[in-house]
Amino acid sequence: MSELNLRAERLDAADALAPLRSRFALDDVVYLDGNSLGALPAHVPDRVADVVRREWGELRIRSWTESGWWTAPERIGDRIAPLVGAAPGQVVVGDSTSVNVFKALVGAVRLAGDDRTEILVDATTFPTDGYIAESAARLTGRTLRALTPDEVPGALGPRTAAVLLNHVDYRTGRLHDLPALTAAIHAAGALAVWDLCHSAGALPVGLDEHGVDLAVGCTYKYLNGGPGSPAFLYVRRELQPRFDSPLPGWNSHAEPFGMSPDYAPAPGAVRGRVGTPDILSMLALEAALDVWDGVAIDAVRAKSLALTDFFLECVSAYTEPGRLEPVTPAEHGRRGSQVSLRCDDAGEVMKRLIEAGVVGDFRQPDVLRFGFTPLYTTFADAERAARILGSLLR
Amino acid sequence: MSELNLRAERLDAADALAPLRSRFALDDVVYLDGNSLGALPAHVPDRVADVVRREWGELRIRSWTESGWWTAPERIGDRIAPLVGAAPGQVVVGDSTSVNVFKALVGAVRLAGDDRTEILVDATTFPTDGYIAESAARLTGRTLRALTPDEVPGALGPRTAAVLLNHVDYRTGRLHDLPALTAAIHAAGALAVWDLCHSAGALPVGLDEHGVDLAVGCTYKYLNGGPGSPAFLYVRRELQPRFDSPLPGWNSHAEPFGMSPDYAPAPGAVRGRVGTPDILSMLALEAALDVWDGVAIDAVRAKSLALTDFFLECVSAYTEPGRLEPVTPAEHGRRGSQVSLRCDDAGEVMKRLIEAGVVGDFRQPDVLRFGFTPLYTTFADAERAARILGSLLR
Repeated sequence: MSELNLRAERLDAADALAPLRSRFALDDVVYLDGNSLGALPAHVPDRVADVVRREWGELRIRSWTESGWWTAPERIGDRIAPLVGAAPGQVVVGDSTSVNVFKALVGAVRLAGDDRTEILVDATTFPTDGYIAESAARLTGRTLRALTPDEVPGALGPRTAAVLLNHVDYRTGRLHDLPALTAAIHAAGALAVWDLCHSAGALPVGLDEHGVDLAVGCTYKYLNGGPGSPAFLYVRRELQPRFDSPLPGWNSHAEPFGMSPDYAPAPGAVRGRVGTPDILSMLALEAALDVWDGVAIDAVRAKSLALTDFFLECVSAYTEPGRLEPVTPAEHGRRGSQVSLRCDDAGEVMKRLIEAGVVGDFRQPDVLRFGFTPLYTTFADAERAARILGSLLR
Repeated sequence: MSELNLRAERLDAADALAPLRSRFALDDVVYLDGNSLGALPAHVPDRVADVVRREWGELRIRSWTESGWWTAPERIGDRIAPLVGAAPGQVVVGDSTSVNVFKALVGAVRLAGDDRTEILVDATTFPTDGYIAESAARLTGRTLRALTPDEVPGALGPRTAAVLLNHVDYRTGRLHDLPALTAAIHAAGALAVWDLCHSAGALPVGLDEHGVDLAVGCTYKYLNGGPGSPAFLYVRRELQPRFDSPLPGWNSHAEPFGMSPDYAPAPGAVRGRVGTPDILSMLALEAALDVWDGVAIDAVRAKSLALTDFFLECVSAYTEPGRLEPVTPAEHGRRGSQVSLRCDDAGEVMKRLIEAGVVGDFRQPDVLRFGFTPLYTTFADAERAARILGSLLR
């Protein structure tokens, strides 16, 4: 047994979060793709079966009230809120991330007022954010400028309406400085909209603390909500009364069953709802969030950094120099919960790695991406993944 | 046993669709709310369990390709297409009805061109359509006029961009004349957008035959897809190359995994997709559609009319004159698959009816609404519901 192997054993033995792994349905595969699709929490299948057989099958329409379906979007929002540093009543769940980016960005532009005519968007972001930002700009008559997060402070001005940024870059794993960028955006009088897809459930976000205006995020990555589980929308409490959604569906009406032809928006986070929520996906997510009970996000972050540090050390030990180039920043303050490695033939390498029982993913054009989910990833996983990767590259 | 009771028995015995009832999880309740939430098809729980335990739990990320998750929206769209009279490649599933109304209406306005400055919307429609139409008008710089479907032909003109209509009124059950209204809209050079929430799966729609431009509909009513199952969007094939969605998410990109910062829309129905689809709800819907195998929508319509005729006859026989006033048109050509009855104290009456094992629903301010789902509603159900209603009102 190698030294790194022994180190992994000791680190796992000392890991206070280690018992959480048993809450998930896992097997011998080293699953380092929880940043694409989180693993299945072991109790979720029974809960989903109950939703389908009893709540839908037996109670049918009565479940909208008796099983709490109607209030699920805001109830589940309040479960997610502490994980992103939000007090209750500011997060609502529903729709996809893309649709929520649209609500948030159009809402932000309207909050900024008519004399602020430019939207700034992260050019390095997951592309859907840029596409939706372009649509939001077109529909609100604003111009759109794409630039790197580092360029944002220098680009802000009296014309800036809103800035849409990713907290963690999906490709490089780089963590952006949410407090500093939000403060700079506010100093220019603009609104900060953050996409938390790659940070929610992976590290502390501090939405309330840093005064973020609006935020969106997905729930199927580090929150383990299941494939395509609904996204969330955060609207800071002070802004809610003026939040003017471009998707004012009947679910966000102050009196949804009044069936009035006139729209009157509900107060609070509910204002971010649109149409009928997809209950099966939503209640699977609600159950999945049970694994977070009693888990502090700071402990998750500490383990995440220890895991990615250790993985990088193992990669360095097991791989010939020059074969892999880390693109994720080494500095803790700039690292998310993933490690991306540039590699020739990355697509082919990832294919062979998956065949060898280590699941990460490949991102165009040459990136191997490994996600570390502190709730279930072990140090032994990190060591084994690096060892197999090293042997494949030899 | 009464004469109506015997008639019900004979009608059920002669009903070619009667065996379909056994494909659903039903009990002694007379369930006449399938127009709010369709009953659970009996095989769906096993399929959902497999999706959760094996596809998510074991295959995890591999299921996006190996379990066909990625292509589910267009594959399921093609399952729905024949039920609404559409050839393959024109229907895609995903998002809520409200979100799809937004895509369809903004898309229609853009297709109509800049010199067409007015949107017409059904004033009697389910309110979300009106709210979303108002948002679409505001964001595209069009005016919006709400009017009854009967007033539409007289209101059309060279400024009309698009008309959003409900095929069946959710409250009264009135069926509007889709072929004639679509033809009138086209004669004015405008686009026809139809909301099929209360007709898809209940009666023939004939989207292709009547040249409808865009349509949306929900799948949790007569299509029995489950609570909040994703809605569908139809874009007529000829319009697809010019369909310009206001929600251009990465799922509608021509090369979604290219991760290009520039948006290039996919061809075909896929262009109506937005973000990551909610797989659990979507695959429950896909399984639910199995009950339609070999079922002709014309047979469904014939049974629906026979059921609602018979129910009205029973109501008339069992209820004191003047106590209930049918608001659903008696004429077959103007009747959907529901019967709405105006009633004093409708809210209280429906509450007691549900306690007595007959589930319909109450719509503000004074309407008892009974939905007839030909796949599982029996003539005995219709007789029993009318009989219990009559006795409650005495």
